[in-house]
Amino acid sequence: MKRSSSSSEDVFAGVLARGGVAEQVSGRAWLQALLDFESALARAQAQAGEITAEQADEIAALCDADRYDVAEIGAGAAVIGNPAGAVVKALKAQTDAPVHKDATSQDAMDTAAMLVTKRALVPLLHDLRGAAAAAAQLAEAHRDTPIIGRTLLQHAQPTTFGLKAAGWMVGLDDAADHLHSVRLPYQLGGPAGTLNPAYKLDLSLDRPVLPWHTLRGRIGELAGALGVAAGAAGKAALDIVLLSQSEVAEVRERVGGGSTSMPHKHNPVAAVSALGCAKQAPGLVATLLAAMIQEHERGAGSWHSEWRPLTELLTVTGSAASWLRTSLETLEVDAEQMRSRADGDTGAAAQLVDRALGAR
Amino acid sequence: MKRSSSSSEDVFAGVLARGGVAEQVSGRAWLQALLDFESALARAQAQAGEITAEQADEIAALCDADRYDVAEIGAGAAVIGNPAGAVVKALKAQTDAPVHKDATSQDAMDTAAMLVTKRALVPLLHDLRGAAAAAAQLAEAHRDTPIIGRTLLQHAQPTTFGLKAAGWMVGLDDAADHLHSVRLPYQLGGPAGTLNPAYKLDLSLDRPVLPWHTLRGRIGELAGALGVAAGAAGKAALDIVLLSQSEVAEVRERVGGGSTSMPHKHNPVAAVSALGCAKQAPGLVATLLAAMIQEHERGAGSWHSEWRPLTELLTVTGSAASWLRTSLETLEVDAEQMRSRADGDTGAAAQLVDRALGAR
Amino acid sequence: MKRSSSSSEDVFAGVLARGGVAEQVSGRAWLQALLDFESALARAQAQAGEITAEQADEIAALCDADRYDVAEIGAGAAVIGNPAGAVVKALKAQTDAPVHKDATSQDAMDTAAMLVTKRALVPLLHDLRGAAAAAAQLAEAHRDTPIIGRTLLQHAQPTTFGLKAAGWMVGLDDAADHLHSVRLPYQLGGPAGTLNPAYKLDLSLDRPVLPWHTLRGRIGELAGALGVAAGAAGKAALDIVLLSQSEVAEVRERVGGGSTSMPHKHNPVAAVSALGCAKQAPGLVATLLAAMIQEHERGAGSWHSEWRPLTELLTVTGSAASWLRTSLETLEVDAEQMRSRADGDTGAAAQLVDRALGAR
Amino acid sequence: MKRSSSSSEDVFAGVLARGGVAEQVSGRAWLQALLDFESALARAQAQAGEITAEQADEIAALCDADRYDVAEIGAGAAVIGNPAGAVVKALKAQTDAPVHKDATSQDAMDTAAMLVTKRALVPLLHDLRGAAAAAAQLAEAHRDTPIIGRTLLQHAQPTTFGLKAAGWMVGLDDAADHLHSVRLPYQLGGPAGTLNPAYKLDLSLDRPVLPWHTLRGRIGELAGALGVAAGAAGKAALDIVLLSQSEVAEVRERVGGGSTSMPHKHNPVAAVSALGCAKQAPGLVATLLAAMIQEHERGAGSWHSEWRPLTELLTVTGSAASWLRTSLETLEVDAEQMRSRADGDTGAAAQLVDRALGAR
Repeated sequence: MKRSSSSSEDVFAGVLARGGVAEQVSGRAWLQALLDFESALARAQAQAGEITAEQADEIAALCDADRYDVAEIGAGAAVIGNPAGAVVKALKAQTDAPVHKDATSQDAMDTAAMLVTKRALVPLLHDLRGAAAAAAQLAEAHRDTPIIGRTLLQHAQPTTFGLKAAGWMVGLDDAADHLHSVRLPYQLGGPAGTLNPAYKLDLSLDRPVLPWHTLRGRIGELAGALGVAAGAAGKAALDIVLLSQSEVAEVRERVGGGSTSMPHKHNPVAAVSALGCAKQAPGLVATLLAAMIQEHERGAGSWHSEWRPLTELLTVTGSAASWLRTSLETLEVDAEQMRSRADGDTGAAAQLVDRALGAR
Repeated sequence: MKRSSSSSEDVFAGVLARGGVAEQVSGRAWLQALLDFESALARAQAQAGEITAEQADEIAALCDADRYDVAEIGAGAAVIGNPAGAVVKALKAQTDAPVHKDATSQDAMDTAAMLVTKRALVPLLHDLRGAAAAAAQLAEAHRDTPIIGRTLLQHAQPTTFGLKAAGWMVGLDDAADHLHSVRLPYQLGGPAGTLNPAYKLDLSLDRPVLPWHTLRGRIGELAGALGVAAGAAGKAALDIVLLSQSEVAEVRERVGGGSTSMPHKHNPVAAVSALGCAKQAPGLVATLLAAMIQEHERGAGSWHSEWRPLTELLTVTGSAASWLRTSLETLEVDAEQMRSRADGDTGAAAQLVDRALGAR
Repeated sequence: MKRSSSSSEDVFAGVLARGGVAEQVSGRAWLQALLDFESALARAQAQAGEITAEQADEIAALCDADRYDVAEIGAGAAVIGNPAGAVVKALKAQTDAPVHKDATSQDAMDTAAMLVTKRALVPLLHDLRGAAAAAAQLAEAHRDTPIIGRTLLQHAQPTTFGLKAAGWMVGLDDAADHLHSVRLPYQLGGPAGTLNPAYKLDLSLDRPVLPWHTLRGRIGELAGALGVAAGAAGKAALDIVLLSQSEVAEVRERVGGGSTSMPHKHNPVAAVSALGCAKQAPGLVATLLAAMIQEHERGAGSWHSEWRPLTELLTVTGSAASWLRTSLETLEVDAEQMRSRADGDTGAAAQLVDRALGAR
Repeated sequence: MKRSSSSSEDVFAGVLARGGVAEQVSGRAWLQALLDFESALARAQAQAGEITAEQADEIAALCDADRYDVAEIGAGAAVIGNPAGAVVKALKAQTDAPVHKDATSQDAMDTAAMLVTKRALVPLLHDLRGAAAAAAQLAEAHRDTPIIGRTLLQHAQPTTFGLKAAGWMVGLDDAADHLHSVRLPYQLGGPAGTLNPAYKLDLSLDRPVLPWHTLRGRIGELAGALGVAAGAAGKAALDIVLLSQSEVAEVRERVGGGSTSMPHKHNPVAAVSALGCAKQAPGLVATLLAAMIQEHERGAGSWHSEWRPLTELLTVTGSAASWLRTSLETLEVDAEQMRSRADGDTGAAAQLVDRALGAR
């Protein structure tokens, strides 16, 4: 084994940073997003005739994260209190073209945050919808498979496993739709938020009504939607963990893992890990909502308190979705075991499955 | 002064339970909502021919909160672990008609929660939109009033007070729109969530796709939207508190209060109280999101952990909106003082005011 | 049934405000604590010769909550933004003696908060220690009763039910010790926190080093300790809920309740309710910790955001402890059922039980 | 500039991971702590005669993080759901000596968590106490410097800047004492928590009464204490930010930074960054407290949800302390400006400064 090349690597990554999100929210991804802002700004200003096309090209050519050292930018962030300053400084060291013209560092930071989010939502929504699709397949396949309904963890009346899976599906679908609908605006307000965004940044982000340096409703909405997605994933994962209990044994993850001490054990590792990720979301949402109360035209600390929680919230929600998808896609269902505890008519449950699948 | 008639009255009500929301989420309001469920259920079942119209009438006639003692119902909630059981028992003591037929206590509780929410949102949105309207008026009146932009609480570049107010308005409007759009479904799933809602409850609530006893996405969305509304109110309130500082003195609440020790002081009581309310929201949102991870067909504790936080979240968000509205509606603006610190062109800011007002 | 006498009564009280804490944190209890401050202040000032003994007596005679209407004080709180102002005003209306001399409203509010806490901790700690004692009895009685150890909810290796109960006991004991050790100071700093507490208030509260109007470490510590207590109660409750599952059936609450729709069901109502209460704690702790960041000599909103969360946190932690105690005191253990799943040596587990009981 | 060697580096490090804590909680630090457990276990078992001294030596020789790739261990964590499994596997690939004998992966993980914490607390407490010492110096130097007391951000009565600084000092000292007093136990319970810790692990951690795989009181206490420390740091930072306002201008950070757009600005970067870090703590504490409610002998997700929040909480609290220390150590005080607003006797305030300094 080779020696680790960086002390910042994560010993938990395999559990807590699963799926494609981690790469989209990495230090490098943030750096690229910051550079993308500078590049888009220059191009927009060239189009508006405020700088020359050559200058814009020159700036854009420098906006490749591979040219920079993330750790160096990270260290440089200490100077003005955010990494955008370090990025601008690095660019200016290489060109005389008017980098970052008229903009403020928060323009770069907020736009980067939305770009990072937009890019992270691709794998996140992919896994969330993948999990929903796997749940839909289970719902269809087990439309009529009786299972005992459990309320307060006591046997109640029969339902079908299909209806249980349909519930997971509806929860995941709704969460994905909600998340997909959150508007992600770019930021371009200048030092005091008075810049009229005459030019639209070409970044596939929404154009805001006003500069939103201290109007953080979109981030609050996004946080809420991510929290709901994590909750929807956690709900399904909890059911799987409970159904996997030794005494219940109605489902089994094909990929389930062993333990360091008891190799014979078959733990529902995917569902457990999904829960481990999902449970981290509510506290992060609270931090982001608390951060909405910002001062005047630039938050003094509240703004800074958003960066890591947003990054973490995307990571844990994405990881939860990815683990849940794996769990659902590899779930072995013991219909006989289910049936053995559920005696009674389940026609209404089956009809609800049809209703839910039909509404998709 | 007369002796207090109840030990449960609230010494903080004037500060933390302001505006019309408190009455809509009171013990009595919850009781009425629980009764409204039973009444609507009976009527729907009469329409479906499952019980007679006479029976439904008889049940409906009993569904008036004035007939019951809230404290008694509250105490009775201990028996099965929720107040719906106590309500059903009280009804059954008075009639042989088939009360609560086919339903489970969570059907009553969840429907009541949504009814309470729907009713509480009326004054809450009224105050939120009232605050937005007051901000809009300030935006219009002070479209061109220069004020220094402050970033990290340092003087930056001039903007206009109108743009600051327009920002508050946009934040409040967006939050109100978001909150208004959250779907509030009734619940009717029966003991194991398998009841096909063949009959629609006539309660001006949405019809759910599936019973959602343990699919809490709507509550999570609602929580997020309330958190955003509280945050939007808190942002404006913080700006007002900061502008009211003795050293800044650019605005002044006409209703501002004194102190027990320094009667000459003029505190921005409304804005301070709005902040005091708004800051309670994020923790409550976190509790509601964490509660999404529920067991099988009925949450064992997670469900129970929603009732009070939802009630509190509606209360503090409504109170924040009410206080902010008062603050904004009584705000005295010292344009001269503002102008004295802001030197420079503010044309772009004024255009942004137009843009924001135009987009309303 | 009689009509409810107050709209502020709580339909959830039986579940979410159980045990003796609710009465100690009620509106009336807060009012009495506010009055106790004024009375203690007058007596201390009489002893210091600053007012006459007669004046102190006159003030003290008025400091009985039964003389006032909680709701009226609550409404009056709106005037200066806290109820202490309304209390002082009500006192001054009845006497010319120097009420509230040299003090500020936060002196009264903070001292009242600590008095309310001190009084609420009596039943809270009583129930927490009662629950620990019940767990200790189970630990002793089932020192050698084999039960399968469950990791990630899968069967692992045998342990004893006594060790499981000993774990609950240790968690509860530690939490109670920690909570008991938190210092609860009175407050007496005057308008700007410069009052030298020359006279000690005779209120069985600790004397602070400095006025702590905006130094909220004690409240933060208290919040953390309450959160830990709620967590310790929740851990035991979750185990009981899991052991009570229909498929597991190794314990059973004697008091367990039915349901509105399935009277035959035997739900672990006490443990479920304990969980429902405990799960509300973390969000409230977060609010109280966030409120530590206060402005200068008096928090502008942060302070106000403490009152309700502190009240709620005491309530839910006390209720969780009370419910858990009931659950543990009425727990029926099916040792045969436990034994049937646990095969192997459990001597080490039994020794750990001795160790834990011995360390008590 | 060279290309970044790792995509996991952090673009925010300079702001959000300041001071010595980051290195102590890095992936490499966690890996070393996991190895330290395995090494200490082997040595303890050699001493107990269960394995040979040679075997222990052989194992210990392998327990150097430099021999392994953090990212590889991180990826391997996915297999059983935690990195301890990957570490054990890597060790076993190199030796036939009995690695990890009798232990369970959570023994390694929990012990590592406490080791990481213990090591991170060194720089964290160093900076917290350094900040307190800087505050003490300010308290002494400005014992008599009048400053207007501000309540609800309005001028109230004079106090001294020394008393304000003494308040910061007391808050920081108390928080450091509290944090220092939290016991940090090792873990050694084996697969079902029944292992009698006959041998003490030589790791300068506390010996627990019982295995605490699902008794998370210590982690809850630790979380609360870190939250209080962050709050104490945040309180001082907020005062500095407010005193630095352009209109107030009573203090100034010597190291304050500029902006990308307005180089003339002098932002209180250290205090703002301290706030940005401190505000992330409450949500993380809530996550850790919520995670206390764990299942049976091993939490199914709750346990996993602790790792990152604990790491983050140490990081943000340490960073807040480090920034605050810098801010306080470089604070320029404009006594004239303070004096110009504060007219009146401040003798009592000065005496309180003496009292606070005397109690140190």
